[in-house]
Amino acid sequence: MALIAPSRRLRRTPFTDGVEASGVKGYTVYNHMLLPTVFRSVEQDYRHLKEKVQVWDVACERQVELRGPDAARLMQMLTPRDLRGMLPGQCFYIPIVDETGGMLNDPVAVKLAEDRWWISIADSDLLFWVKGLAYGWRLDVLVDEPDVSPLAVQGPLANDLMSRVFGDDVRDLRFFRFGWFEFEGRSLVVARSGYSKQGGFEIYVEGSDIGMPLWNALFEAGQDLDVYAGCPNLIERIEGGLLSYGNDMDRRNTPHECGLGRFCNTQTAIGCVGRDALLRVAQEGPVRQIRAIELPGDSVPPCDRLWPLMAGDVKVGHISSAAHSPDFGCGVAIGMVRMTHWDAGTELTAITQDGPRMARVHERFWK
Amino acid sequence: MALIAPSRRLRRTPFTDGVEASGVKGYTVYNHMLLPTVFRSVEQDYRHLKEKVQVWDVACERQVELRGPDAARLMQMLTPRDLRGMLPGQCFYIPIVDETGGMLNDPVAVKLAEDRWWISIADSDLLFWVKGLAYGWRLDVLVDEPDVSPLAVQGPLANDLMSRVFGDDVRDLRFFRFGWFEFEGRSLVVARSGYSKQGGFEIYVEGSDIGMPLWNALFEAGQDLDVYAGCPNLIERIEGGLLSYGNDMDRRNTPHECGLGRFCNTQTAIGCVGRDALLRVAQEGPVRQIRAIELPGDSVPPCDRLWPLMAGDVKVGHISSAAHSPDFGCGVAIGMVRMTHWDAGTELTAITQDGPRMARVHERFWK
Repeated sequence: MALIAPSRRLRRTPFTDGVEASGVKGYTVYNHMLLPTVFRSVEQDYRHLKEKVQVWDVACERQVELRGPDAARLMQMLTPRDLRGMLPGQCFYIPIVDETGGMLNDPVAVKLAEDRWWISIADSDLLFWVKGLAYGWRLDVLVDEPDVSPLAVQGPLANDLMSRVFGDDVRDLRFFRFGWFEFEGRSLVVARSGYSKQGGFEIYVEGSDIGMPLWNALFEAGQDLDVYAGCPNLIERIEGGLLSYGNDMDRRNTPHECGLGRFCNTQTAIGCVGRDALLRVAQEGPVRQIRAIELPGDSVPPCDRLWPLMAGDVKVGHISSAAHSPDFGCGVAIGMVRMTHWDAGTELTAITQDGPRMARVHERFWK
Repeated sequence: MALIAPSRRLRRTPFTDGVEASGVKGYTVYNHMLLPTVFRSVEQDYRHLKEKVQVWDVACERQVELRGPDAARLMQMLTPRDLRGMLPGQCFYIPIVDETGGMLNDPVAVKLAEDRWWISIADSDLLFWVKGLAYGWRLDVLVDEPDVSPLAVQGPLANDLMSRVFGDDVRDLRFFRFGWFEFEGRSLVVARSGYSKQGGFEIYVEGSDIGMPLWNALFEAGQDLDVYAGCPNLIERIEGGLLSYGNDMDRRNTPHECGLGRFCNTQTAIGCVGRDALLRVAQEGPVRQIRAIELPGDSVPPCDRLWPLMAGDVKVGHISSAAHSPDFGCGVAIGMVRMTHWDAGTELTAITQDGPRMARVHERFWK
């Protein structure tokens, strides 16, 4: 496997010094920024995540900030999810689509106030789309990328670790809610959220200068909890059915194909881009959709390209993410499958770079 | 140094099989795609590029295609460079800026016809900006990323190699002009251009299926020319002053700061986004600007972050790209320097991750 070549263009984060000191072994690039992918081994990281607590450098979840009188109007233009009931202090997972209903990003919206929002983005320059719309529609809103870098604390012991640094009130945060918590005199947004199914928090670290002090404080407070550096874990996120923009979906897919139809309130999300196309999709339903796919066997090659899913000689879909799961004793994968073959139990053939593999449509994700 | 973790999100190109077979050692990620950075060593690649001919997988220079009656109008909105005199068959290097004059990309525009253009982009999702503008202004134009992957042939023997595959007419192409040339019955855009100062071509390979056939044809035709796989070379591009978006400039910089003022015809490029801001800048001139920087000494650490440039205790700029140049016997670098200290010969201190270094403002780039 090849090395990643250092350059300023692949931005370091406020936590990279800590990540390097923890022995990071692999990186990916996400929003032009370094995102760790493995520390000890993907399997060891996986086991530790499920049993202990980890600190994740997810600074690459950059924020797009919307500020000004038209901020709420622009937010509703961006997504088919109805935001009218959303209150300050809430986070919403929102599909963002273009005029044809194609996915541009699947971020988490953070409502700081009526006229101030963050969009915590997946891997695409959503800033460019938001700025283009704001300019084209002459909206009265400032759109920018602030100096805010999320740091995630994930795993079953996350409550214990976080309460030692931020106080016991952090335990009362409900899922996808956030509050303001103090660290070294700074007030930070802390949300109960994160890109795993093990529970935990995301700290929106505002100001790069307190990145390493916070990183160090968490590690010092968690020594007896066996806290370790971690990162989104390929195996765990596939088991849990957490989609990855650019891997499992892109601009060619509608939210309905991605199984995100429940976040499309196309009848009531007045003014959203892509409404016409999505009304049509909502009426007819998608002809292909994301499915959990089981790959029986003891190992899985790295899924660095789409693997066609074949029913005999006919291509009926593809796999976009795959890994071997120690807990479930098989390969776990995310695929997009045509409706003719998407029923649970359907047996297909996946064409990997190492040859064909039996692939079975699974009823649901594993956890 | 860390490994790059494989995933579908870091897209392979139509040439990746060839790149791997040629023993690629390092990658970067560019427009969500793999871009090789080194084959034998950066120094060996550099020497070979200057003496022979190389084939480069630059598929990551993705195209944004504009097609339709409003294509030309939208193109002129995108850039302060006056496009009125541009003819089909020409390539123009164009700064693209936001409403404040901040750089969003510095691509090459390829005019295929009055109503059909490609924008061959640097590393940002320019597609999102172009789509946002087209939607906001309700323009009658289709905007998309076509299946077009540039393959570059660079080096002093490029004419010889290209004429063996595409015929002798390719020798007559003038700089930044393109023509249509046949390969296996397909008509491809071939331009005299490329991200080096050694001369050569870029082939806009339309259709992924002919990627490897063309790659192989070039290598077979060039055996006696010592053709080898290559890539944009860090040393050579800094010697030549070729800027890299995301490294040497970003959204915070105006074209004038980047030394691209000559591409800003702000008085005549009617309708371009950012005109008001750039008129102001053109009047006052930039207060900081790109400069060639010499780093005396025998080696240079990897420039993976901005290196502050200090005059005593005062920060007067930064270095964004650096490498050791065998041919010039010193470190060569690209910096952004305040006008108070940008005169040739000024001696400053660069703060690298390995400590301070003397840095001298150089009169011009080296080649």
